[in-house]
Amino acid sequence: MQPLALNLATALWAVEVAATLAFALSGLMEASRKRLDAVGVVVVAGLAAFGGGTLRDVLLDRRPFFWVEHPHYIWGIFGLAVAAMLFMRQRHMKPTERGIVWPDALGLGLFAGSGTLIALDAALPPLVAVLMGVITASFGGVLRDIVCNEIPTAFRDHRPYAMCAFAGGWAVVAVQRAGGGETAALVLGTAVAFGLRALALHFDWRLPAWQTD
Amino acid sequence: MQPLALNLATALWAVEVAATLAFALSGLMEASRKRLDAVGVVVVAGLAAFGGGTLRDVLLDRRPFFWVEHPHYIWGIFGLAVAAMLFMRQRHMKPTERGIVWPDALGLGLFAGSGTLIALDAALPPLVAVLMGVITASFGGVLRDIVCNEIPTAFRDHRPYAMCAFAGGWAVVAVQRAGGGETAALVLGTAVAFGLRALALHFDWRLPAWQTD
Amino acid sequence: MQPLALNLATALWAVEVAATLAFALSGLMEASRKRLDAVGVVVVAGLAAFGGGTLRDVLLDRRPFFWVEHPHYIWGIFGLAVAAMLFMRQRHMKPTERGIVWPDALGLGLFAGSGTLIALDAALPPLVAVLMGVITASFGGVLRDIVCNEIPTAFRDHRPYAMCAFAGGWAVVAVQRAGGGETAALVLGTAVAFGLRALALHFDWRLPAWQTD
Repeated sequence: MQPLALNLATALWAVEVAATLAFALSGLMEASRKRLDAVGVVVVAGLAAFGGGTLRDVLLDRRPFFWVEHPHYIWGIFGLAVAAMLFMRQRHMKPTERGIVWPDALGLGLFAGSGTLIALDAALPPLVAVLMGVITASFGGVLRDIVCNEIPTAFRDHRPYAMCAFAGGWAVVAVQRAGGGETAALVLGTAVAFGLRALALHFDWRLPAWQTD
Repeated sequence: MQPLALNLATALWAVEVAATLAFALSGLMEASRKRLDAVGVVVVAGLAAFGGGTLRDVLLDRRPFFWVEHPHYIWGIFGLAVAAMLFMRQRHMKPTERGIVWPDALGLGLFAGSGTLIALDAALPPLVAVLMGVITASFGGVLRDIVCNEIPTAFRDHRPYAMCAFAGGWAVVAVQRAGGGETAALVLGTAVAFGLRALALHFDWRLPAWQTD
Repeated sequence: MQPLALNLATALWAVEVAATLAFALSGLMEASRKRLDAVGVVVVAGLAAFGGGTLRDVLLDRRPFFWVEHPHYIWGIFGLAVAAMLFMRQRHMKPTERGIVWPDALGLGLFAGSGTLIALDAALPPLVAVLMGVITASFGGVLRDIVCNEIPTAFRDHRPYAMCAFAGGWAVVAVQRAGGGETAALVLGTAVAFGLRALALHFDWRLPAWQTD
């Protein structure tokens, strides 16, 4: 029987891979909608997958980036892009969108938690650390949309997404303040952000809209 | 009676707070026009307020950012965003735009001066230091407009804005070359940029346009 | 008779100047199409000329930037912008576009090669180093297009551009692995990227398009 810690590490790794795939697929679909060429497909998928963590690391002045330490992930993006251009058709969009909802929500949780932890390790104040978690989890999609010449979905769809990451980040801060370890903080932060996102999706929650005149 | 230096420090601090508020309000109004959700409102207001200084610090490889050292300013942005979504109506736009013109012009001056000083302290050549002042003063608005999917106003409205910051930056360089202290350089740089901006507004100056064919 | 190394250095310097001019002109034309004001013209021309190398240096955490070490290039951009606004007419666009094709292709090769070399010197893995070369060579144009509120041409025109830089980068890696010196790597990388770009232009190559349904 494997020890529990190893099982947990495997589970976190599996979530990371599935979530990165979901983020990249969101980029591929946006690139497909805009009829980008192969270069655009790779860049937009890569931005969606790694843009949030990279922006966090630039802001924290932290190196090496994830994709520099693990360049085989970049080959994975190349492979996905080729497969998408060969096989992705209009009729695949809807099923793909439905298929990535849950790995995307898990990624939202995991990256909010890990981003917050990394920033706390760098001795940033709690609020800033939580914002770094939000950036890690949601700014890949923001950069994807900016490059595709759209106002970022995360800023205008009135659905709780970044706000779930925000709550998950505070859960990480709370666990660390209570003397819990990094693993406990990561697991609880992921669970809070993912759970809120699941509730938001299930009950179709909306953020409050502007008052109309 | 308070010493003069203290009064000056208080005055500069008051200008900084008023200008940051004016910059954030410019972001809130843009976010309102685009009907962004609460997340978008916070991000766009924050970018407008702190984006210029943050971009300067990334380029200079300088940490911590202003909003990392002073996280209570971020809470201020949150509060403003909530207030705007509750109370800002279409009919408030025009008065708000008029109300922020002068604090915005003061901020243009102060941030052009302080940005130039920071870059001179980092031993950058004068022209580059002046450009860092311009970036500090005007690129918050540039990032705000890019995220809102507009060509930045500062690049297309044919009004002197960044150019006033440019002149203020050179005033800072001149004072330092003449052996003046940092405070004198900051005050004169602020005054030059603000004064030019005031003249530009008063006389409705325009930048030369492209020759039509 | 001058030694060969000096002639080569002069040739590389001439290519660099001509290519930087071509990149800046691509920015000037885009700014002219969008009727930007003088500030916008300078920023967009500067981004097109120096944006790729600056983004590479931010990602590599490398200072000083090229334009900080050589601020007279910035004055050159200012001069170009003034000249463009005074003298550039609609009828000059087509000849300028044709005139910059070859210096632009040389710059694509040189900056892909030098960007890859710089990243290899920083001990990055080969694939990442090659991507840094691609970013150096092509992301100035990407930033130019994003600021001008367009989906970047490099991501949607289905012409090989970044892909030629990609091939040139691998040529640099191959020469270094084979024990060749930096100069040999730079020259061969430039030649490969330029040669492929020349073939692509001559034979009007297209990247594969999305499968239509």
